[in-house]
Amino acid sequence: MAPEKLGREDAENWMEGLNGWRFDRNGDAIRREFEFADFSEAWGFMARVALLADAHGHHPEWFNVYNRVDITLTTHDADGLSLRDMKLAKAIDALL
Amino acid sequence: MAPEKLGREDAENWMEGLNGWRFDRNGDAIRREFEFADFSEAWGFMARVALLADAHGHHPEWFNVYNRVDITLTTHDADGLSLRDMKLAKAIDALL
Repeated sequence: MAPEKLGREDAENWMEGLNGWRFDRNGDAIRREFEFADFSEAWGFMARVALLADAHGHHPEWFNVYNRVDITLTTHDADGLSLRDMKLAKAIDALL
Repeated sequence: MAPEKLGREDAENWMEGLNGWRFDRNGDAIRREFEFADFSEAWGFMARVALLADAHGHHPEWFNVYNRVDITLTTHDADGLSLRDMKLAKAIDALL
């Protein structure tokens, strides 16, 4: 079953519980940028996010250069944000 | 010492020995897109590239979503392409 797209009010409510994420793509995605000491630390974080992604069955769109990691979450099957994005964002926040 | 920027002729010569890379950013970078069966396979590849990057002391700008990995190589200290990019690209090609 395709995940349900979150209404704007629900999405905003979830965002209040998250840390440093902002809406992107006209509210159809959320995005957060992370900065680390160096590549090694950034990569260690990415490895942990990859494990989370696998556990959640939901994958980020992400970009890395050296110590920066830029993560965007959206749910293609919902044409926007779903609970999957918010739960993965919360789990990512909990790593830090 | 800052790495030397490759001349266009040298860069084109290196490109002949690479697989599927194309010039990007007006010739100041090279880029290749990779597609895998799924996230697990894409991530396995990324882990190997991360080890290479560490060994080479040179890091990619890269993007991943699910089974796709998009790698851009450039040398900021050279304001363009240097030998570091070509050598890392060659090593990445050799993984496949």
